[in-house]
Parts: sequence; C-alpha cells; structure tokens
Amino acid sequence: MNTIGTLFRLTTFGESHGEAIGGVIDGCPSGVPLDFAKIEHDLHRRQGAPSQGATARRETNHVEWLSGLLDGVTLGTPIAFIVRNTDARTSDYQALQSCYRPGHADFTYEHRFGLRDWRGGGRASARETVSRVIAGSVARQLLQQKAIAITSEVALPKMDAIDDSYGGIVECTIAGVPAGVGTPVFARLNALLAAAMMSIPSAIGFEMGCGFSSTQMTGRQFADAWQCETFPQQPCSSNHCGGVQGGISNGMPIVFRVAFHPVVTQPGGMECIDCNGRLHSIVIGGRHDRSHVPRTAVIVESMAALILADALIQQGLI
Amino acid sequence: MNTIGTLFRLTTFGESHGEAIGGVIDGCPSGVPLDFAKIEHDLHRRQGAPSQGATARRETNHVEWLSGLLDGVTLGTPIAFIVRNTDARTSDYQALQSCYRPGHADFTYEHRFGLRDWRGGGRASARETVSRVIAGSVARQLLQQKAIAITSEVALPKMDAIDDSYGGIVECTIAGVPAGVGTPVFARLNALLAAAMMSIPSAIGFEMGCGFSSTQMTGRQFADAWQCETFPQQPCSSNHCGGVQGGISNGMPIVFRVAFHPVVTQPGGMECIDCNGRLHSIVIGGRHDRSHVPRTAVIVESMAALILADALIQQGLI
Amino acid sequence: MNTIGTLFRLTTFGESHGEAIGGVIDGCPSGVPLDFAKIEHDLHRRQGAPSQGATARRETNHVEWLSGLLDGVTLGTPIAFIVRNTDARTSDYQALQSCYRPGHADFTYEHRFGLRDWRGGGRASARETVSRVIAGSVARQLLQQKAIAITSEVALPKMDAIDDSYGGIVECTIAGVPAGVGTPVFARLNALLAAAMMSIPSAIGFEMGCGFSSTQMTGRQFADAWQCETFPQQPCSSNHCGGVQGGISNGMPIVFRVAFHPVVTQPGGMECIDCNGRLHSIVIGGRHDRSHVPRTAVIVESMAALILADALIQQGLI
Amino acid sequence: MNTIGTLFRLTTFGESHGEAIGGVIDGCPSGVPLDFAKIEHDLHRRQGAPSQGATARRETNHVEWLSGLLDGVTLGTPIAFIVRNTDARTSDYQALQSCYRPGHADFTYEHRFGLRDWRGGGRASARETVSRVIAGSVARQLLQQKAIAITSEVALPKMDAIDDSYGGIVECTIAGVPAGVGTPVFARLNALLAAAMMSIPSAIGFEMGCGFSSTQMTGRQFADAWQCETFPQQPCSSNHCGGVQGGISNGMPIVFRVAFHPVVTQPGGMECIDCNGRLHSIVIGGRHDRSHVPRTAVIVESMAALILADALIQQGLI
Repeated sequence: MNTIGTLFRLTTFGESHGEAIGGVIDGCPSGVPLDFAKIEHDLHRRQGAPSQGATARRETNHVEWLSGLLDGVTLGTPIAFIVRNTDARTSDYQALQSCYRPGHADFTYEHRFGLRDWRGGGRASARETVSRVIAGSVARQLLQQKAIAITSEVALPKMDAIDDSYGGIVECTIAGVPAGVGTPVFARLNALLAAAMMSIPSAIGFEMGCGFSSTQMTGRQFADAWQCETFPQQPCSSNHCGGVQGGISNGMPIVFRVAFHPVVTQPGGMECIDCNGRLHSIVIGGRHDRSHVPRTAVIVESMAALILADALIQQGLI
Repeated sequence: MNTIGTLFRLTTFGESHGEAIGGVIDGCPSGVPLDFAKIEHDLHRRQGAPSQGATARRETNHVEWLSGLLDGVTLGTPIAFIVRNTDARTSDYQALQSCYRPGHADFTYEHRFGLRDWRGGGRASARETVSRVIAGSVARQLLQQKAIAITSEVALPKMDAIDDSYGGIVECTIAGVPAGVGTPVFARLNALLAAAMMSIPSAIGFEMGCGFSSTQMTGRQFADAWQCETFPQQPCSSNHCGGVQGGISNGMPIVFRVAFHPVVTQPGGMECIDCNGRLHSIVIGGRHDRSHVPRTAVIVESMAALILADALIQQGLI
Repeated sequence: MNTIGTLFRLTTFGESHGEAIGGVIDGCPSGVPLDFAKIEHDLHRRQGAPSQGATARRETNHVEWLSGLLDGVTLGTPIAFIVRNTDARTSDYQALQSCYRPGHADFTYEHRFGLRDWRGGGRASARETVSRVIAGSVARQLLQQKAIAITSEVALPKMDAIDDSYGGIVECTIAGVPAGVGTPVFARLNALLAAAMMSIPSAIGFEMGCGFSSTQMTGRQFADAWQCETFPQQPCSSNHCGGVQGGISNGMPIVFRVAFHPVVTQPGGMECIDCNGRLHSIVIGGRHDRSHVPRTAVIVESMAALILADALIQQGLI
Repeated sequence: MNTIGTLFRLTTFGESHGEAIGGVIDGCPSGVPLDFAKIEHDLHRRQGAPSQGATARRETNHVEWLSGLLDGVTLGTPIAFIVRNTDARTSDYQALQSCYRPGHADFTYEHRFGLRDWRGGGRASARETVSRVIAGSVARQLLQQKAIAITSEVALPKMDAIDDSYGGIVECTIAGVPAGVGTPVFARLNALLAAAMMSIPSAIGFEMGCGFSSTQMTGRQFADAWQCETFPQQPCSSNHCGGVQGGISNGMPIVFRVAFHPVVTQPGGMECIDCNGRLHSIVIGGRHDRSHVPRTAVIVESMAALILADALIQQGLI
C-alpha cells in the first residue's frame, strides 16, 4: 500500500528515474490558503546544503499542483501534485540491471514483484520522500492553525570515517498537542508514529520519550509525577513517556527519536551479486550522501505532521 | 480503531472489569483445524509463572468460541471468542473513580472520551492482550503450515530494586519467511511490525536488527554482504538490517527488539491527582507485576504472527 | 469483510446455528446513554408479528452487552454484544450436509471456502441481521440527538400465491439530514446506501428518488427546481433525485427504495443438488417466512442509520 | 474518499477545468504488459460518436503515464497517470460563480466544503470518469488473462423530446467468473458492484438479475433451478439472481442493470439560484449531452472491471 492515513490520506507514486514522482492528498479540509513558500522551504531542507555532505543530485524539484486548489485555496477535493524527474542519469545505473547491491532493496523488490526498475533504486529510492515532504508541509500548515509546532534535532555520531557514510538520530518534538488526541489499542498515537517513521528509508529504530533507556529505570524513576501547579495543561513534572499514555496525548510535548542506519552505497564501489549468485564489483556513478541524516530531519517532521493532522481531523479538532 | 490488519484482521473489545473481553478474527482462511491446546499454552505463557514475579490475579481465562468454527475447523467466516472477567475485584479500584494515577491512561482516556471505566484500567488494561494472544496463536498456526516459526528472548536489567518494578527488552526472531514478503513504502513489514509492537501496553521502543547501535557503525560496517554459498535462500553473511530491506523480507531471519518500560503501579501507593489538580496518596489493592516483561514475550510473538499472517495472505502465500 | 463503516464501524459474526451471533460497534461516541427499550423494540419489529406470516422460529434474542458501556452509557470503546442461538434445531438441516438448496448460498459458500456450516444457512442466514438491527438501533439513537428520523414503508405485491412466498419493496425516508452531508466520488452517500442495502439478504435492487422511472422522464421533467420560499432549508420544489446530489445531501429528505426477491425456501420441499450433480427432493423442517419483507423494513432502516451515523461522525457533526 | 478498492485500489483526482485530472492505481500485479491501444479504445468509447448526440467538448484526452511502468510493463508499484485539461473554456461558466444550477452538485458541494470550483462542475463533473475508464481498462486486461469478459447493452427510452435530454439503462454482463468469487456479508460482490455503479454521475438505480421485477414473482418462479447437465460450471437453468448468491458468484454470468437519469443541463438555459435565494435565468455555454447514456456504458464496464479485479486479487486468483 502506498497510502497512509484514515481521513487525511497521502498516496505517493513514482520511481526515481521515471517520468515523475508525486502524491495525492485526500481529505484535506477545504478553505485553507496554502503557503507555497513554506513548502519550498521544507523541500530545500530536504535537499540539504552541500556543505553538510548532502546529495549532489541537482533535483530542481519544481512542484506542479494539478488539482484540489482554486486560487491557492484548498477545495476539500484531492490535492494532486507531481515533480518531474529532470536530472535522472539512468546510465549511471546500467550495471545494476542484472545485479543486486548489498544493503539495498534491489534483491527484495525482484523477489516480491518478479521485476524491478533498476534505475536509481526505482520506487525504493529516497527520492520518494519528496512527496512526503510536500504533503507533510501541507499538514503542518493545518497544525499551525492550531498552534501545534513540530521541530527536530539531529544527533550525529563522532566518527573519523572520512571516506565512509554514517547514520544518526533525529529527535522530534511536537509541541502544542492538547491532552486527549489519539485512539486506544491498535491506532495509538505512538504506534502510528512508529509506523510512519519506520517507513522512512534507512530508519531502523524508534522510541518514545526515554525509550530503550527506560529499561534501566525502576517504576518509580520512570513514572511521570503529576505537577499540580500546571495541571491539567502541562500535567507532569517530567516526560519520560514522551507525551503519550495509553496511545493518547497527555498534553506534554510529544517526543520521539528515530535511528537511521548509514546509507550503504559506497562511492568506491560495492560487491554486487547477480541472480546466479556471482559477485561483481561495481562502481555506481550515482550521486549519494555521506550523511543523509541532517536532511532526513524534515522527513521525520513531515511524517509526524501527517499523523497528527489525521488524528485531529478524525476527532473533529481540525 | 480497535482493529489491526488488512485481509487477516483482528478486532478486540472489552474492559478489564466489564462482562468479558474478546475478539473477532476476520479473514482467517477456511479449512484450518485449530489446535486449542496450543492456544491454551500461549495463554499460560502470557499468564506467567508466579516465581517470575508475575501478576497474582487469577485469570482463569476460559475461552468461549462463538463463531467461525465447525467441529474445530475454521469456516472462513469471522471467528469470535470471549473470555469472561470472573476475578474482577472492582472494589480495589473504587478510589480511582475521581483520581488519575501517574503513568497510566486514566487522565488521557478521560480527556479523550469525557468519561472512563475506572475499574482496573478499563479498556487500557493489559488484560486486553489476552485477545491478542488468542488471535496470535491462531495466526501462528497458519504460519506453522508454512514452516515459519516465531520465538523470542527476554533481556531483563540487573537491578537491586527489590521493592520496585522494572522493564526489559524482548528480542523476537521470525524464522522461515521467504524473500519477497512485504509491501513497499507505507506498509513496509518493518513499519507494520513497529506499529504492532508499539501498540502493546508499556512498549516504548522498537528496533530492527542492529537498530540504534547501527548509528555507531559506518556504511561499510553496516551493509550486509552477499554470501554466494547460501544465496539466494540465506543471501547475506550478516543480518544487521534484521531481515527486511525496502520493507520486504530478504530471506534472512526477521529480527527485532521491543523495549518495555517498567510498570508504574506501585504496591506501596501512588500520588494520584483529581480533576481539580489536588493530589491524593492512594494504595491500589489490585494485583500487579513487578516484572511484566517475561510474560510480555508471548504478546510480542502474537503480534508478529498477526502481521506476518496478514502479509502472507495478502500475497496469496497462505 | 464482515465490517462496515469508516469511523463508526460495525463488525458482525456468527452462524445461524452456532454458539451465538453478535457484533462489535467501534467508534461510537462516548457519553451516550443507551435506551435499551428502543433496541428491544427494533428487535421485535425484525421478529415480525405471526399474523404477518413471519418466521415461526422463536428467537428470544436476549442481547448480552459485553463491553463498551458503564452503567448503560457508552465509553467510546468497542461495544460488543452477543445473542445466543437457543432455538437452533440443527436436525432440521441434516439433509443439507451434502446438498445445495436452489437459490441459496450453499453452493457459493462451498466454492468460496471449501466447506460450509450447513446448519440453517450458517453465516448466510438472515439471522445475521439481528446484529445489524442492534447496532443500527444504537446508530439511530445518535441520529435522534440531531433530529434525524428514519422511517419506511413496505409495498407488497398483490398475489394469490397462497402456498408460495413473495417479495416486495421497502421505501425508506431519512428526514432531518442537513445539506452538505456525504463525500464526493466513490464514497457518495447514495453509493454507500446502495452497498449497505444490497448487503441485506434477498435485496436485489436499489434506487434513489424516482430511480428507474426517471429513465422515462426528460431532463426538464427530472430536474428538481429551486424553491425560493424555503431555500436553503428545503431547497427544491420536488425531490426526484432523492435528496442527494453529487453524493452529498441537499437538505431534502433522503428517499430510496430497496427491492427484495421472494425467499426461495419452499415448505413443500425443494430440488437440491449434491456435489456430484444429482438432484434430491428435500423437505426442510426449518421455519421460514412466506413474506419476509415486512420485517425487513427495520433492517433497511438500521443499515441506513449505520451509514448516516458514520457520515456525520466523519464530518464532526456527531 | 476518492479511493475505491481494497488490494487493487484506484484513487482519482482532478477538477474539470483545473490543470489535469488523473488517477493512481495501487496494487496492480507486476509483470503485466499493458495494451495501450485498448485503453485508447475505451477512452474513445467514453467520448462517444457525435452522431450519438454526444458531448461536443473536444477532449483530446492524451494520457501521460507517470509511474509504475518499465517499458510498458507493470512494476507492481503505483501506476499514476494524468490527462491535461486542454479544452477548458472557463468563461462559459463565469455566471455560475455565485449561482447554483438545479439538479447539479453546485449547492451541495458549497454546503459540504464552504467553497467550490464553479468552473465546469469542478470535481463533480463527469470528466472525472476519464480516470475510471483508464484504470478500468487496466483492470479489464487483468481479467482478460483469466478469460473474464465484460460487455454491456444500452436501453434508451423512446422519446420525442427533441430539445430535451433523456436518460436510460445500461445492462452489464460479466462472463467467465468462476463460482466462489466474492465475500459474504458487507463486501458482497453485488453490494460492491452497487456502490461502484451508484458512484457514477447520474446513476440513480441498480438491480441484479431480475431486480425490481422479481417483486412480482413468487418464490418458485424466482428460484433458479439446478441444471444437472451443466453443473457445476453453469449450475442453473435460469439466472434470475444475476449470478451472485450470498454475495458470492455462482458461476453463471453476472448480470446487473444501472439506471441513469437524464442530464439536467439545458442548452436553452436554467433557473439558477444564488446564496440569497434569488433566481437567475442562466444560459450555460458549456457543451453538453442530449443523451449521455451510450457513452456511459464503458464507465459501467470499467467500474465492474475494477471491482472484479480487486475481488480476484484478494482471493489470490490473479
């Protein structure tokens, strides 16, 4: 399924080196004037600055809005948008037509579908996240009307791996969510956030609040005590649980962390395997990140915005 | 939403101290003779042994099968089951009618719904997971027909907290999944597993393979190299990614870990707050765990079974 | 799928001669005190009066409420209910174990699932609609709070078929729905109503407003003209379209008709076929209707209530 | 919701006079070479011949395929396509900016969303069905691999209404569906077909087999008798039920009829109303049908193809 959400839904499509990538936002409330500069800003954040060691592919990422808008205002009908793949150098990937890269989805896609678009990772390329950032930016504008703000910080490992890639952690904070947002049992806010984050390419871990470190705490240490002075708006004196209890927001900031493994494409070449099990050392001419985590931050925020907007719309709060 | 799954779906219902808890399994293939002893076995694992410091509540957990079976064989129609709440000592919780416990869902449920069942945690009680174990045990039997086995190991912290509770980590392994199971983008196998695990009460973190520790590895260290000798059945020489690439299984064991925070109910009493923001020290007579993680293992496995069965059914593999 | 609805969802389960039938209502708003007498009343309407030639099966239909309620008030959690099958005379159906009745679902279920519950129609029995009436009665109570009333009238054919069964038409009117309820394109209110009605056993036709007879009208005759005096509350001077335009209510009463074919079980016996294609004349001792349409009216209304409640909840109007 | 389907899903987007209309097909099996000439053919059928009194709007309807294909073969990833709105004469509709036409969705959209795209009907325009025909043509190609063929016949009223529009009936036959396709209770094949058909603009009635006329038959007349000679492939000697019993196909042709009311746009002008309840006689320069039913036939077939393909994929039969 290439759709996420219940009432506020995003469907994405597109391969990295196909005609275009894009998405359809269904269920966006009507009457919202979109701020396209904010969307551009978010797309630039995803693009990353060259100084941060970000991708060298010059995606111009011009967004064409196809539907759902009249004079820049949402109509309540599906908002479709596309971004053409203009800088796709397919020849870079020719050698991969019959080989699978290690640590990529080449092998699994071929087993799943019997064939795959071998050009630039095809559907598995991180380029797909352009659509998420665009839609997430729309969702974020809905949340801003309710004074909900989503920010994040990046923690990178200290490494001397000058000629190798590395991963990192994005810590995301959603401020301004009132108590009572979310749905019990399977659609808990934390469960939906976890799925949304783990759907980002190279995400490998997710934790709310203290997360894994809470396994080193006792129950008394972990339990967030009530704070009478600020109750019920800011009900607790600590936030070990990350702002969600029983799957529902408690009014504290919602805090979670997403771990990303290093990108596995190596500029110096990789040992690829063909379908007969023979290894081939292949140098991919594609343009890749040493550290993709800084520009992943906006993707994390975008996915958080999609989840929150959907939750609020379901409860009639947007 | 109290439903999980797309074609193989579980809906659960019930409050801890209501008439009954139960579930409806929709989309189970027909013609499967259920092994009820295995289901009993899984329920016993969830119950835990008293020596492990498990709950003292004597849930007999007699399962009544209401539909979807003829002579113990699945009909392909919804399988409904209930478990009566026979040992519910509501009086234990009387003091909570107007107070919210710290670290529980009392406060958030009341904000979400305007009222709540204050008896024993109501719908937020971990008793709800009885239904998951029953359904997961059915799913597991479907998987066993395909030689897929789900096991887990529990890692508990070393603690001298004799009079306090503690959490822990469940590491789960799904062996026997062929390459090519799962769906790209939002319904990635790892994303669905993450949501399923984070929906378990007190789950606070999830990671695939090396998870958070992969942020300390370089790309070369992390990338799972191809292993010609065992390709394509066991395609890699390591399994840092945890058996899923691009959201699709690669034929290696699927490995993930779930962190659980300590249960926050304290036998010695807790500082609860009322809706006016006044604190009350309340001793809950309820029967609670010091360490609930050992008996959580079977819940983790059950949720994994539900996700895998659904994925295989969607692909026509079951 | 045995579930209907998006935010307000009903899942039903149960075979006619199994342990019990029942349902789970998920997404019911919290804080609603249920009027159980009204639910009983609706169940009695479904039962029909003996004088109307209704079923002779003495279903006591005692509803057990298992969850989702505290002191009769909805909690916002799943409302599960069951009705035991106490008057199931399985022996009546013994001959059907290896034979398919004409005009029933015996043959199709067996092809779909490879086996079937042959006792009293199993899952295909109209007894399943008991669950719909219970849930529909809950939905109706939500609608009554918004002054939406659902009524129906039955049109039976004039027939001298004293020893045979006959069908009929139920015309249903939903009054009090404001303009603007419904969703364009695939989830149009009329499309959802059509699916809900056609899911009732023996439903064979559905039409909005003038329906099939509108194919004998010209555009000018058909078009509902504006009525200035009562605009916008009652915007039109006629209601040929049945109160829905573009899938959205226009403020006029929503009017539709459902055609039901005659029940095909014949008290005098039927030519059944076995899996080898041999015919057997079988007299079914089961207790059946001559005219089931009068008691189908409440099922039509119940399904309409489920659809409307879901639509209003999705728009934040309930 | 602008999405239809469970595993094989179509999402459509676009307003009549916006940038483009289009759709995303998610869940299409991989490895299928698309026959684009067949898609063109279906689009031409929807366009209609001028001699049939069809629309004069010269939609070139050039389909741009954006994703999901490699060398014309499906990849198993979302297939997105768009059709630019090149011949949109917005000025024709200027007068409708502040007025609602009778018998259209202008009024209801404005009540639903607070604003609307007044140009050419916006999202409510029948132009949206271009996307359905494209996707339906893809679905039809999947069905053809299984020897399932969908055809239809149009019945028009005999009318002398030279200067007025009229509706009609499309009778659709799906041949080649084996017994056992479909799902009981709410997702019955007939219920899904009903919803799909009623979602077509100007559809106002739906019936399976004998439909409404079966209310004039007795049970003995209606019941389709078994036919030993051709059992089980063609199990019955008549097909009053239309090939579906208990929501599941019985191996007979699936036959249903859809009634369409006349289009209500009048070339000579219409009495429109403004939001203050004042009438205005407005002549719409737009290009409209006298009889749209002949070209609606391919839309009926397309929707049938979408429903059948989804059902077969869900059962692992495609």
